[in-house]
Amino acid sequence: MNLKPITDLSKLCIHTITTKPWTIEEAARNYAAHGVKGITVWRDALSGRNIKQTGEMLRQLDLTIVSLCRGGFFPGKEKTKRQAAIDDNRKAIEEAFELGTKMIVLVCGADPAQSLEDSRMQIKDGISFILPEAEAAGIKLAIEPLHPMYADTRSAINTLAQANDMTEALNSQWVGVAVDVYHLWWDPQLEKEIKRCGKNNTLLAFHVCDWKSPTVDLLNDRGIMGEGCIPIKKIRSWVEATGFNGFNEVEIFSDIYWKQDQSAFLKNIISSYKKYL
Amino acid sequence: MNLKPITDLSKLCIHTITTKPWTIEEAARNYAAHGVKGITVWRDALSGRNIKQTGEMLRQLDLTIVSLCRGGFFPGKEKTKRQAAIDDNRKAIEEAFELGTKMIVLVCGADPAQSLEDSRMQIKDGISFILPEAEAAGIKLAIEPLHPMYADTRSAINTLAQANDMTEALNSQWVGVAVDVYHLWWDPQLEKEIKRCGKNNTLLAFHVCDWKSPTVDLLNDRGIMGEGCIPIKKIRSWVEATGFNGFNEVEIFSDIYWKQDQSAFLKNIISSYKKYL
Repeated sequence: MNLKPITDLSKLCIHTITTKPWTIEEAARNYAAHGVKGITVWRDALSGRNIKQTGEMLRQLDLTIVSLCRGGFFPGKEKTKRQAAIDDNRKAIEEAFELGTKMIVLVCGADPAQSLEDSRMQIKDGISFILPEAEAAGIKLAIEPLHPMYADTRSAINTLAQANDMTEALNSQWVGVAVDVYHLWWDPQLEKEIKRCGKNNTLLAFHVCDWKSPTVDLLNDRGIMGEGCIPIKKIRSWVEATGFNGFNEVEIFSDIYWKQDQSAFLKNIISSYKKYL
Repeated sequence: MNLKPITDLSKLCIHTITTKPWTIEEAARNYAAHGVKGITVWRDALSGRNIKQTGEMLRQLDLTIVSLCRGGFFPGKEKTKRQAAIDDNRKAIEEAFELGTKMIVLVCGADPAQSLEDSRMQIKDGISFILPEAEAAGIKLAIEPLHPMYADTRSAINTLAQANDMTEALNSQWVGVAVDVYHLWWDPQLEKEIKRCGKNNTLLAFHVCDWKSPTVDLLNDRGIMGEGCIPIKKIRSWVEATGFNGFNEVEIFSDIYWKQDQSAFLKNIISSYKKYL
């Protein structure tokens, strides 16, 4: 494994949802004060704010706005639901443009009332519909495959192979994939599929956290890097072997950590980042 | 989809753990009284009993003992743990022989302290070690791939492709696979891989239940068939297209149903079986 050790925070990005109890202003000030260089903004963090001014505030703190999280949720057995999703994704593209980020992460969606095959067709159609707006705004769309335990409602795209297949089928420089170790670590095809999107120049984002044993909640029990069993260093080595030079994005949903003092949690993230990435 | 409707209970098997509050004697009497023809025995249900006599009791009730559940859990970073697993699997083979069943289901195991690749090698070695005893006892070993959400501690074999790969590598008429819709429904390769084990004559068991939305517990929140989003009929059609003529085994772990009256639950299982399989 050929891996450069992490010596600074120049490639560390944190998702606002990771420190959910903080407002985006608190998060940004604290991230910047600790030397974090990137931020991925969840849309709920922008609620009630002037998005353009918020983007300026982040840049003044020397934070790169890595992406807006999240678009997607295209499938729906009912046409009205699918149309609402298209509208919401167009709104997300506007928000990303105002914020001044160049990427939107797509959690593609699924509807348990229909087959996964139907959901996948609707995802492909949905992305096709919004592609012209994304291109006009200069925003890349990153398809994030989600863990198979989310195949009922959150994503019918559950492996990197599927995300790569869809990216190749859409065949646009504005579409790529996000690799999140939490969703993909178990997959025996992961190294091969990371190479594949690397070759295609479609590896757009790299998300990290850890899988705890035991994990007691399907959604909000993610671990800090080093706390679980994901071979993060190995996966980072595969990602970087493709030439990926983007941020390492820390995305942790945790009822446990959200209850703790967020400053202490941030320090824990930073020290774990240096040690376990 | 070419699928014969279910018209009777001649192929219905229930796992003792499905009605966990019942003793094996209660379960067997109730299953038989309702016309259920098969039972899969979980080892804990045999605790403190004469296993041979228990087997006779089940046969007198005209129940086919489909399998003993479960062997496996081969991996361990420590050698002592791996040796203990081998010993326990040999004990399981003895128990299966005494009980008079011809199959053991293997939940293969994983150890979060080591890589999935190491766990997989130890699983292969472990099965190799116990194969002579299985063959001597006339017991088939069914490798059950488990959902990727169990890759940390329960199984490093998470897709049917992996189980088929391992079965082919072991190359013994005493080793095959168990297909459980709960673990595998999300996998876009499922139809192809069911065909593959069908062709190899290694499809040994078919387990059913459903995936609820939302699922609130990683282990004990399975649904009755029809209650969730798994395309059970479609998967049964793939399984039967291979020529599989074994039992449809209902395996439900549910804190909710275990709290209910088990007779009512059994009636619910039977009516759902007729409707949704």
